[in-house]
Amino acid sequence: MPPFPSSLLNPRLSFSLKPLFLFTQSSIAPQQFPVPRQLISAKPRNFSSVASVQTSATDNGGSSSGGGGRSGALSPPPVAEEFQRIDVNPPKGTRDFPPEDMRLRNWLFNHFREVSRLFGFEEVDYPVLESEALFIRKAGEEIRDQLYCFEDRGNRRVALRPELTPSLARLVIQKGKSLSLPLKWFAVGQCWRYERMTRGRRREHYQWNMDILGVPEVTAEAELISSIVTFFKRIGISESDVGFKVSSRKVLQEVLRCYSVPENLFGKVCIVIDKIEKIPIDEIKRELKATGLSEEAIEELLQVLSIKSLTKLEEILGGAGEAIADLKQLFSLAEKFGYSEWIQFDASVVRGLAYYTGIVFEGFDREGKLRAICGGGRYDRLLSTFGGDDIPACGFGFGDAVIVELLKEKGLLPELGLEVDNIVCALDYDLQGVAATVATKLRGKGQSVDLVLESKPLKWVFKRAARANAERLILVGNTEWQKGMVGVKILSSGEQYEIKLDELE
Amino acid sequence: MPPFPSSLLNPRLSFSLKPLFLFTQSSIAPQQFPVPRQLISAKPRNFSSVASVQTSATDNGGSSSGGGGRSGALSPPPVAEEFQRIDVNPPKGTRDFPPEDMRLRNWLFNHFREVSRLFGFEEVDYPVLESEALFIRKAGEEIRDQLYCFEDRGNRRVALRPELTPSLARLVIQKGKSLSLPLKWFAVGQCWRYERMTRGRRREHYQWNMDILGVPEVTAEAELISSIVTFFKRIGISESDVGFKVSSRKVLQEVLRCYSVPENLFGKVCIVIDKIEKIPIDEIKRELKATGLSEEAIEELLQVLSIKSLTKLEEILGGAGEAIADLKQLFSLAEKFGYSEWIQFDASVVRGLAYYTGIVFEGFDREGKLRAICGGGRYDRLLSTFGGDDIPACGFGFGDAVIVELLKEKGLLPELGLEVDNIVCALDYDLQGVAATVATKLRGKGQSVDLVLESKPLKWVFKRAARANAERLILVGNTEWQKGMVGVKILSSGEQYEIKLDELE
Repeated sequence: MPPFPSSLLNPRLSFSLKPLFLFTQSSIAPQQFPVPRQLISAKPRNFSSVASVQTSATDNGGSSSGGGGRSGALSPPPVAEEFQRIDVNPPKGTRDFPPEDMRLRNWLFNHFREVSRLFGFEEVDYPVLESEALFIRKAGEEIRDQLYCFEDRGNRRVALRPELTPSLARLVIQKGKSLSLPLKWFAVGQCWRYERMTRGRRREHYQWNMDILGVPEVTAEAELISSIVTFFKRIGISESDVGFKVSSRKVLQEVLRCYSVPENLFGKVCIVIDKIEKIPIDEIKRELKATGLSEEAIEELLQVLSIKSLTKLEEILGGAGEAIADLKQLFSLAEKFGYSEWIQFDASVVRGLAYYTGIVFEGFDREGKLRAICGGGRYDRLLSTFGGDDIPACGFGFGDAVIVELLKEKGLLPELGLEVDNIVCALDYDLQGVAATVATKLRGKGQSVDLVLESKPLKWVFKRAARANAERLILVGNTEWQKGMVGVKILSSGEQYEIKLDELE
Repeated sequence: MPPFPSSLLNPRLSFSLKPLFLFTQSSIAPQQFPVPRQLISAKPRNFSSVASVQTSATDNGGSSSGGGGRSGALSPPPVAEEFQRIDVNPPKGTRDFPPEDMRLRNWLFNHFREVSRLFGFEEVDYPVLESEALFIRKAGEEIRDQLYCFEDRGNRRVALRPELTPSLARLVIQKGKSLSLPLKWFAVGQCWRYERMTRGRRREHYQWNMDILGVPEVTAEAELISSIVTFFKRIGISESDVGFKVSSRKVLQEVLRCYSVPENLFGKVCIVIDKIEKIPIDEIKRELKATGLSEEAIEELLQVLSIKSLTKLEEILGGAGEAIADLKQLFSLAEKFGYSEWIQFDASVVRGLAYYTGIVFEGFDREGKLRAICGGGRYDRLLSTFGGDDIPACGFGFGDAVIVELLKEKGLLPELGLEVDNIVCALDYDLQGVAATVATKLRGKGQSVDLVLESKPLKWVFKRAARANAERLILVGNTEWQKGMVGVKILSSGEQYEIKLDELE
């Protein structure tokens, strides 16, 4: 038996000392393979290196392998006239998803989808490009100021969506009476914003949304928070890592009403209040004054907003208002759903979108290092702002950025490697077709196969198998194939055997 | 026992004649439910109708339920100042995906992903918005003319990607030596085009791409076609429905070389030739002449392009060129992969992208009713056009539009209904919390639950269960819950029983 390169002798990949039937002298030495036509003029290559890969096979202008016949020797076709190096980075603020990042994204999105499925929600999607008018609101939200908008070639004002909710509202109005309420819809979609200033922030993120339309009761909000809690638990996040601050826009409304603040200021006041803890309190006061609030109203407002206890709030607002009743019902339901430890009342939570009307909530990390992880609330009046009939509604948005930061912080990022069931490799060039047959057979049985498409040294094949965390290596060699058999090596155990192709499962 | 509404007596939903322990008089008559606070002033509603849903719960300005305390009765908050009806349709040429369309999209994409997994490919993605420069080529492709490009707010020229391959090339150049070749990558991404003319064509579609980088041999193209064949078979499409026309750009190259046509015309000539059978032949001739080809060259070219037999092609081009060798190898491999019946040589296939250099192929419906279903080929010189080192490469694009048309034609569109394991419903308003507990318990076991979030008549619940194709209805009624039990009804069989909550699986 021929000796094996020592590099093959790591525990995962090493051969046993049983007769090494698979690898005859002729099949283990790559330089002895019948050399394929395309490789005749090839320089030695290093296939772990992009730069050193050369492409003689198809650009052999004037080489010996291309000549003859009417065709003559050909130069490479000139597919483009420009050869200056492009910027290889994705546009500012955007991301590529190479395989390792895509595996994490898929892992995250699969949890979004699986939780949504557990809650009986149906998936929907909308165009990433919408008419700008859909996002124009006058409340001065950050999301509005940062709209990624432009004029299309037909001079229409369009925007890359900054959020999904307006599209949902548009679709619901469009579908009208054909919808069966309550709707329980979810979506995972890319959202965009445009910032002129460079703050190192991304211009796109993906957002998981769940929305319930047609349920006026707080059970809907309770259900939504339950789904987020379920998601957190599935990915290893506990109530000691994150919590939800909950309040109601009705708290603010009730305070503003006491001071006879005109109702059309409500949205703007909420937008300012959402900046508390993000900008200095004096700035908050100045902005509130600018909306037209009296000093007295501002002081009262800020006092109420500092309340973290529902009992205290009730003392101030009285027990008969909707704000208190909604919040009490929510906390009662939280107990029944089993997530009491996750939620707390916090009057300062108002969320930054103008359209919320009732309960609002946001997920936060208890160490206080990160921005809000997710947020949502009730928006019973959104549809009428688009000219439709209102339907009671609530929902949340959950981005893909902060949660990944949190998982990193907590050491909870999953290890997600490539996983392939089989590597199939021909040991002789003229067995490439047989290897294709073997691969087809395995794939037909639902097994994934990374088929080695070129003549490669066995060492290379093992390296590839290790990288792909392959379970089996299937080797097609001349000696075995003459008996209609192929060699199988179980890579975890080192077990190896020959088997008839027909019996390969 | 109370009589049941006759509408419940359809085969799927009807009760057996066993004692109907679940539904006591008080729990079946909805008007006898304790009426929740929010519903006090509600009009009767029809929840299958959006328009008739009214939202008294949160807009009860001045109603009896909102009064008292400091809050007083509140008017709805003014979340927006504009109320004109927006255009409820998605922007021209784009699509919404309501649940039924999303199910079809997911079904299709899952097949794309599952086939890619079977072939050992890794998923990747790139920004839908790229620098315009990435797509600027001078060959006059349709894809270039229809670029959905614009200037962003920072005056940068950007474009919604018309295809995925340039982004792949960009990322591969960026990653450089860190990549292990061959790469086998796939992506499913949305691509955009902009047409000024209204041809009823969509401006966006999704495209499945599979690409192999680092393999100069035709085994790569053979593997790609095998994956598409695998996809077709999985969705019920056979070789009698579709086929692949295969040729090589090298055929054209060899002909052009005979007539001393400058190599920098190659891309342009290919773009013109791709229009054969799409525009009149005289127009083709005129366009070819415009590129600078002689009449003689044009006639010879068109003659060669009409060839549908590899043997005939070999007679004309001679047997020594790469075109013939590549094609022969591909047909030989097709046999080993098991898809010989699917492919045929057709010299007229050149594909409409400038960057192809070798084998090109396209999937077509054998009835000839539809545009190409998918297409691809070898593009060994693309990376150098971006200033990178070339790597041998091939790939294909497979859109989500034509395949759905084909499935419709063939009556092969799957029936994809909503599927929920359980509907959980409280029969009394004050059991809503218990229903939440039941739902949480089932979800914890991986069961999907559509939790009824309001007090609803039983008839409504059954309708909802039928719509969701629910397996079980779990009813939480007072009588049973006093014993710590809930009622279960298996909707397919009509079987029903009481069970302790702890024993519910």
